Amino acid sequence: MGEASLIFPAGEYRRRTAALQSEMARHGLDALLLTTPPDVFYVTGFLTRFWESPARPWFIVVPAKGDPVAVIPAIGAELMGRCWIDDIRTWDAPDPHDDGVSLLADTVASITPQRARIGLPMGLETHLRMPVADFARLQARLQPREFADGTAAIHRVREIKSEAEVEKIRAACAIADAAYERVPEFARPGVPLARVFREFQVALLQEGADWVSYVAGGAGPGGYGDVISPADDRPLTPGDILMLDTGAVRDGYFCDFDRNYAIGRAPDDARRAHAALYATTEVALDRLRPGMLACDAHRILTDALRAEGATPGGGRLGHGLGLTLTEWPSFTPKDTTVLREGMVLTLEPGVEIVPGRILVHEENIVLRANGPELLSRRAPSELPEIHE
Amino acid sequence: MGEASLIFPAGEYRRRTAALQSEMARHGLDALLLTTPPDVFYVTGFLTRFWESPARPWFIVVPAKGDPVAVIPAIGAELMGRCWIDDIRTWDAPDPHDDGVSLLADTVASITPQRARIGLPMGLETHLRMPVADFARLQARLQPREFADGTAAIHRVREIKSEAEVEKIRAACAIADAAYERVPEFARPGVPLARVFREFQVALLQEGADWVSYVAGGAGPGGYGDVISPADDRPLTPGDILMLDTGAVRDGYFCDFDRNYAIGRAPDDARRAHAALYATTEVALDRLRPGMLACDAHRILTDALRAEGATPGGGRLGHGLGLTLTEWPSFTPKDTTVLREGMVLTLEPGVEIVPGRILVHEENIVLRANGPELLSRRAPSELPEIHE
Repeated sequence: MGEASLIFPAGEYRRRTAALQSEMARHGLDALLLTTPPDVFYVTGFLTRFWESPARPWFIVVPAKGDPVAVIPAIGAELMGRCWIDDIRTWDAPDPHDDGVSLLADTVASITPQRARIGLPMGLETHLRMPVADFARLQARLQPREFADGTAAIHRVREIKSEAEVEKIRAACAIADAAYERVPEFARPGVPLARVFREFQVALLQEGADWVSYVAGGAGPGGYGDVISPADDRPLTPGDILMLDTGAVRDGYFCDFDRNYAIGRAPDDARRAHAALYATTEVALDRLRPGMLACDAHRILTDALRAEGATPGGGRLGHGLGLTLTEWPSFTPKDTTVLREGMVLTLEPGVEIVPGRILVHEENIVLRANGPELLSRRAPSELPEIHE
Repeated sequence: MGEASLIFPAGEYRRRTAALQSEMARHGLDALLLTTPPDVFYVTGFLTRFWESPARPWFIVVPAKGDPVAVIPAIGAELMGRCWIDDIRTWDAPDPHDDGVSLLADTVASITPQRARIGLPMGLETHLRMPVADFARLQARLQPREFADGTAAIHRVREIKSEAEVEKIRAACAIADAAYERVPEFARPGVPLARVFREFQVALLQEGADWVSYVAGGAGPGGYGDVISPADDRPLTPGDILMLDTGAVRDGYFCDFDRNYAIGRAPDDARRAHAALYATTEVALDRLRPGMLACDAHRILTDALRAEGATPGGGRLGHGLGLTLTEWPSFTPKDTTVLREGMVLTLEPGVEIVPGRILVHEENIVLRANGPELLSRRAPSELPEIHE
């Protein structure tokens, strides 16, 4: 049996499991414990917005050989049963006395030797989605087995997207492309930013997003202050630069890119900043290659910005993308992750126009052997203006 | 200054901080470390969808006395600066060498004695939103200070909603009420469920949701199989029961209730199930009182369902609500949490019509001294039918 599956054919998940098991063997791991929405989705195809409820932990155990085992709340049995894996063990959660710890411990114990090393993602950009006190109980129950860092095992596999995954991300990008095209219809002078955010989300849904996990942006005279704030009720005003950024989701896969618009005539310094960001992205699209490090990408973008006479904005200048809005690596001076063929990445240079006013430009790419292939439709080379 | 604040006046957050500090004193905690979106939002008013990026940890330290301290990625400095707290310490995240651990350890060390007990939510329905390996480093850096369970300290405070919070949840409920009213406009025979989900999200946004964190549901002949699945492309068919459930968000606060619709003429067993659920909810609305336990609520609902001749569906029959789609307590036989005046709760009885076909009914209430006050508009007593 086991051929029922969601989102992708079962073969996709079997290949992922085999790749994980190969990495686990390289790292001397006898099992891998996964607890977060993207990791569970990656291995099983279990896709639900029910993760929004923090009430219950969910566990997937990838053994050294054989199919993964799901140890999950009973409420998820029906949906997990439509995925490709057959071994699904459930408990009635939330249980204040034993919220899956015994069932998980018994499961892990039954498929690993006594001296096993259990991999757990515990490094940068990870967290453990279960109560800390329950994890301590699990560790005690599983002794003399030990938990070891499984971050590399899951990251080295997940970061290389299959062509089927690339097509999902391309589809999410196309939805955002179409929604950005419609922004001039509703982002008019006098319209409050909060309404612009709502209309933009409506446009994303109408263009085919299953849901909209992320919309942020900003609007201010000649630039904006930050890129993570929710909207306020200030109306758009001629001279503003409006930025919208989205992570729209289709079949569980994200896009993540932004677009900028001038309300009325674009101020000269904003036009120059936009041109510098466009030119900088062109340089990265031309030069990025597999084998470079994440910090090399940061340097290419920073050097290009400086060559354009722009002041680089702070923070990372790009990152991974796929099952979450952002994935590793990060284009910072410190990240030495190797960029590999098949990685889906954002190019996200930012400039500071004056202190407190920034402009950020973002594209999504898949890294091919001969360089980046765009997944988002290229932003216009000149800052677009929205006139009444 | 510290009087700037988001969502609520600064006084609201000061009262919350004082209440937390009182609970911390009761539990012998010298500080409380918070890492999750709702906990950070609760103390500071810091509201952003940027949590969707798992790249960076965020920390709030509540000292035994005085204002909370934010230890956060630099990208959040601008937005946190618009909140009421003044002490904001930042680092350039993500940093593969030290992702805020030193800064956090120094901060905690500077405001607690050497033998301090640092509270951390580590019990049921909690998790720690930072890498496990970094938490181990933090523990080592802070010795001889110890981490202790801070779950009760945050839960006993957060579970009692202020009137300002109740009004926010009421507003979120009103948005969903208005959107449910419009479901017959787009949930017509022949329309694929996936399109119904999209149109429902559009309606929620148009009715005033800032964003829609949760939509789930189901549709099937005479009932549905589960309540957490995403939509498929099967068209609605006469004889189907359609259920939609949503956690729409306004100003950071959630509603969480569902509604059922018959496509065409309602099958008799579904009509009887709906009537039993309606009557059961009436019983709970009549009998629930502060001082009861969560398991008492479960018993009231189960007994009422049985009195109606219905088979109770599995799982919990209600839960807390507010800053997330679901909060503790859970209406299960095992949860002995005391129900208190000011708690916002869901009443969520479910019945199994036949094995594999269920019907779930949900309302949102605030518990007053004399019983529940509805926050959602009461569902119709008879299962509504949608005709072509």
